[in-house]
Amino acid sequence: MAIASAVATPSFDRSDPRAVRRAVRTGAHAGHTAGLAPGYVQGNVCILPRDFADDFFVYCQRNPRPCPLLGATDPGDPRLPALAEDFDIRTDVPRYRVFRDGEFVEDVTDIRHLWRDDLVAFVLGCSFSFEEALMEAGLPLRYVEQGKNVPMFLTNIDTAPAGRFHGKMVVSMRPFTPAGAIRAVQITTRFPTVHGAPVHIGKPELIGIEDINRPWVGDPTEVREDELPVFWACGVTPQSVVRNARPPLCITHTPGHMVVTDVKNASLAVL
Amino acid sequence: MAIASAVATPSFDRSDPRAVRRAVRTGAHAGHTAGLAPGYVQGNVCILPRDFADDFFVYCQRNPRPCPLLGATDPGDPRLPALAEDFDIRTDVPRYRVFRDGEFVEDVTDIRHLWRDDLVAFVLGCSFSFEEALMEAGLPLRYVEQGKNVPMFLTNIDTAPAGRFHGKMVVSMRPFTPAGAIRAVQITTRFPTVHGAPVHIGKPELIGIEDINRPWVGDPTEVREDELPVFWACGVTPQSVVRNARPPLCITHTPGHMVVTDVKNASLAVL
Repeated sequence: MAIASAVATPSFDRSDPRAVRRAVRTGAHAGHTAGLAPGYVQGNVCILPRDFADDFFVYCQRNPRPCPLLGATDPGDPRLPALAEDFDIRTDVPRYRVFRDGEFVEDVTDIRHLWRDDLVAFVLGCSFSFEEALMEAGLPLRYVEQGKNVPMFLTNIDTAPAGRFHGKMVVSMRPFTPAGAIRAVQITTRFPTVHGAPVHIGKPELIGIEDINRPWVGDPTEVREDELPVFWACGVTPQSVVRNARPPLCITHTPGHMVVTDVKNASLAVL
Repeated sequence: MAIASAVATPSFDRSDPRAVRRAVRTGAHAGHTAGLAPGYVQGNVCILPRDFADDFFVYCQRNPRPCPLLGATDPGDPRLPALAEDFDIRTDVPRYRVFRDGEFVEDVTDIRHLWRDDLVAFVLGCSFSFEEALMEAGLPLRYVEQGKNVPMFLTNIDTAPAGRFHGKMVVSMRPFTPAGAIRAVQITTRFPTVHGAPVHIGKPELIGIEDINRPWVGDPTEVREDELPVFWACGVTPQSVVRNARPPLCITHTPGHMVVTDVKNASLAVL
């Protein structure tokens, strides 16, 4: 077991975004990206055929909280130099989720065999960027401390439809003391391109969450008596609406397995 | 009754801060100042003998959330031209509250007979300034709509002591929907000199408030099922700590009966 574990996590410079991408590209790293390349923007991924991509562009524009668009490739071009010079969307995500006709098919670690001339890749901002700012401000993130994935919930909040894309918003939840929640609103407001301020606070039942201890994806996180659950729009929302749009092919990242860019988190702060 | 009412509220330009002060000064207006001179800063007042004023300066510096200092007079000088050229602290507050040895004595509408050469008057920022910004952003203030005074509560939150001044923080409470509460944090953060962001949200019992329907001063305001109570540090806090400091004389405004200045609310916004 010790040997298998060592083989699964070979050595690479976990602080350097280029080294992380290289490790992902070569298959040396296929796990979560939480804590990797600290200080650098990580992104949600959604890849669609050009026909659906046109609708998705509009969907992102109308739903900037769950879908803050950091960049999109040209059709068939796997590069996105604005986010990283060496970037290749076909190999640089640790784990991909493949959907056909809106249904989940499989998770894979490479999509070169699935790439087509008509595919457009979208990279959306991710809460890892603002979480760094929260931790720097001294606010604890329980799920990070416990080495778990953030809990995510499907809400009853309608997103603004665009063409064939429509559906409910997915949110991530982090518990804070009331004073911590106020500070978290202030800090995340500074980062509109990575989901920005929370969309809800304190009353999960009002947004259709029946059991705060049973997330839709991710791991459960305790909300203590002296804490409020705080909810942010989540970049996993496309994985919910793609079920309604039913494109023949859609490839996303697997939750928590983000693409690592060369863009600095601090460069996204608006204030 | 109709005639008495007409006599009690004679005509003056309620939109002009100078006209409001003149009406207060001449005894034509001795009521609440909510809604008067919209757009202009209103202030909490605390007047102390010089000996205690030195401690109070430090107290304000250490407690900027409840005691954001907008200005202080020179000892014995009732003027404060930085806030209004014609300002006279002895006559320009609609209703004063007189404390002797920390105990409430009486409410009066003029303190010329109490003025002394060693008195220093402090003017502290008031939530009326940020409430205007909240209403402009479309957030409803129930107590304003109902023509009532904001509910204020004595909490278990210790203020930072300075000399003889020490005690618990007083807070004001406004109910908002969760999304409204998040917006209210953003808006009031822009106004640090008028209490700034909330100090608490959602769980009154954690700050020592036993019954949200029974304020310490002000009127009760309903908090509905789909709302959170949001709490801001309140400029009535000095009226609480003065009970502990027990100065031989202290004169404050009566809650809700503020001094109206010529400073624009918008000039206080930091962002």
